[in-house]
Amino acid sequence: MKTFLDCLPCMMSQALRAGRMATDDEKKIKELLDSIGAMMKDIPLENTPPETGDIIYKEVRKITGVDDPYKKIKESNIQEAISLYPELKEIIRKSDNKLLTAIRIAIAGNVIDLGVGKEFNIVEDIRKILKQEFGIFDFNEFVKHLEKANSILYIGDNAGESVFDKILIEELKKPVTYVVRDIPVINDVTYEDAVASGINKVAEIISSGSSAPAVIPELCDENFMEKFNAADMVISKGQGNYEGLSNVERSVFFLLKAKCHVIANDLNVKEDDIVLKGINI
Amino acid sequence: MKTFLDCLPCMMSQALRAGRMATDDEKKIKELLDSIGAMMKDIPLENTPPETGDIIYKEVRKITGVDDPYKKIKESNIQEAISLYPELKEIIRKSDNKLLTAIRIAIAGNVIDLGVGKEFNIVEDIRKILKQEFGIFDFNEFVKHLEKANSILYIGDNAGESVFDKILIEELKKPVTYVVRDIPVINDVTYEDAVASGINKVAEIISSGSSAPAVIPELCDENFMEKFNAADMVISKGQGNYEGLSNVERSVFFLLKAKCHVIANDLNVKEDDIVLKGINI
Repeated sequence: MKTFLDCLPCMMSQALRAGRMATDDEKKIKELLDSIGAMMKDIPLENTPPETGDIIYKEVRKITGVDDPYKKIKESNIQEAISLYPELKEIIRKSDNKLLTAIRIAIAGNVIDLGVGKEFNIVEDIRKILKQEFGIFDFNEFVKHLEKANSILYIGDNAGESVFDKILIEELKKPVTYVVRDIPVINDVTYEDAVASGINKVAEIISSGSSAPAVIPELCDENFMEKFNAADMVISKGQGNYEGLSNVERSVFFLLKAKCHVIANDLNVKEDDIVLKGINI
Repeated sequence: MKTFLDCLPCMMSQALRAGRMATDDEKKIKELLDSIGAMMKDIPLENTPPETGDIIYKEVRKITGVDDPYKKIKESNIQEAISLYPELKEIIRKSDNKLLTAIRIAIAGNVIDLGVGKEFNIVEDIRKILKQEFGIFDFNEFVKHLEKANSILYIGDNAGESVFDKILIEELKKPVTYVVRDIPVINDVTYEDAVASGINKVAEIISSGSSAPAVIPELCDENFMEKFNAADMVISKGQGNYEGLSNVERSVFFLLKAKCHVIANDLNVKEDDIVLKGINI
């Protein structure tokens, strides 16, 4: 997906939020915004939004000197998600379609996104998403691909959401490789966060090799790309990964909540819709 | 009021909205955002937000070549407001406190603000604001000053809102001078808009002498400043004028709806509160 004009003011807002997470020093944050502003002219609209995000969060790290401004909030989101785990497992146990319920729960976890600046209440959001209609619902194709697959590459998105991913992985009942960001960026899931979420008990964890807040093939390392190309099935979580992967040539299933109007327009759904979309299937 | 860090991404969003009003040419709008971005470093936080707005809307005019991107929408807002005028006059006729009802109606008109990017439905908003509690309510002082005043300077804000201002001016029952922007900026009221709203029938109309989307003493002309200093009572409408005038030394009564969290924080009210605040009274 390309960068839309609306993404540019949003990038400034993201820099402000990340700057505030990293420091209380107003002058430093102003310096950060000045610097991001000066970079605007070097951001082509042909970039995917997370490529631009990569540039911006690098600048946040450089100017504030803080490598992981979201560290504490990520830990607390993971702990909150873990505390909900037994109840969510019980919801799945009682449900008629365990796989679909697990998909809904994994999408519900996608509200834990500190990039988009929307407030969320995870318990309420789960309740809503368990009953919500899908904007796009390629569930039958998902099941067909899953039945045939012997290897699944599952691309994670946010820390905390990763606990909900574990729940879906447990229902896939196939060998899964879980992909994390190479270094901390926004509240995206890293190796350390994935382990704290218990993913290591249900999947192999690998890095995308990229610092971008999404999987963007051009920025990922060879090891990842080999696995990406070879996997029988790819499941991609969240907006950022959709932005980075929506134009690839292989089949991918995207699970996300459309949290901004730009993504919603691109997907031809309404803002806040939940989406299970397969491409090249 | 100073510029807050939150104002900077908001300025980018405003430039995007104004750019889109002026042209469909995506490249031109990108050029505009690049240019606004590059200017960030020259915008000190000590500026009032409308001083920064002045710089930004000058750039909109320069890059798009369109002097009044909001012209059509201003005309349509004025027409819609005029169509409501008889009904609003009837509401005042029936009300126990005609002055207070007219103040509420004048504040309701302040939702017609295309700078802040909030959606509004003028009929619904009037209904709500006629019953809404005030966040700040210096009504008694307002009445005291009004009773003693022989000259009132009434600083307008937006086109369309100006029709609602006319209704309040009719209830003030004192000689009023109505202040408009010198040239079109956002959807702010100009001389032409004020006449289209019928203000010329109830007040003398003068320009602030400034192109900024607010009255900022340093940017206004001498004629205006003389009248500003000499008036027995000054009534100021809207956020922009509050931002520009909140630190002046003379008495001013501000009538506004707090449409963004930065203003709400500065006023110590909640977002969307309605405000009748006097300073130096």
